[in-house]
Amino acid sequence: MGRNSRSVSQPELRPRFRILRGTKIAFGPGKADLLEQIAETGSIGGAAKRMGMSYMRAWSLIQEMNRCFKQPVIESARGGRQHGGAGLTPAGRHVLALYRRMEKHSLKAIQSDWEMLRTLLHD
Amino acid sequence: MGRNSRSVSQPELRPRFRILRGTKIAFGPGKADLLEQIAETGSIGGAAKRMGMSYMRAWSLIQEMNRCFKQPVIESARGGRQHGGAGLTPAGRHVLALYRRMEKHSLKAIQSDWEMLRTLLHD
Repeated sequence: MGRNSRSVSQPELRPRFRILRGTKIAFGPGKADLLEQIAETGSIGGAAKRMGMSYMRAWSLIQEMNRCFKQPVIESARGGRQHGGAGLTPAGRHVLALYRRMEKHSLKAIQSDWEMLRTLLHD
Repeated sequence: MGRNSRSVSQPELRPRFRILRGTKIAFGPGKADLLEQIAETGSIGGAAKRMGMSYMRAWSLIQEMNRCFKQPVIESARGGRQHGGAGLTPAGRHVLALYRRMEKHSLKAIQSDWEMLRTLLHD
């Protein structure tokens, strides 16, 4: 994702939206990435590995989301297999799509201010 | 700012913009708040106190900003007085105003998606 790319010298703008319920973060950039990785890899373990976090950490983030939303965002096939497959529920896909659209719409709306701010920064 | 208000049960959306130069954060929500507090209190020490950070921490954030922007964002009257008065330069006021406008425009642009996402969350 270019986060550690050292060749990029241009200033970069990153919008992050946090959805708070009291002091808890119901949803945010990390949880959005986690949902996306689960959808791509088809498993919680695969997603956790790609994101450099433990299975337990990923599982706890999922539990937090499932408590904050009316419907679960992840469904996992547990049963006999250890760390079985997982995927997004329709609610999970909906949440992720809305969040990504918010990022996109936000970037578009601030483009002209960002262009101006950028001219004030060293190259 | 209601961050620790426990009476608010409604989900809350907080947009945060980070302006990155490589791995360094040139500007973001914390630095915007710091500029605002310096403008309000007229001193780095007063701003630091309000934000619950040390004078040295505030000073180091200011140095970071002054290195990232073409023109300094803060001017301080040092001279004889210890921790003398400080204020925003014209560049500092410009940066802060652009950043706050980005937040405002962003919130407006994502309003309808946020309303939809909100209906998926527990009250």
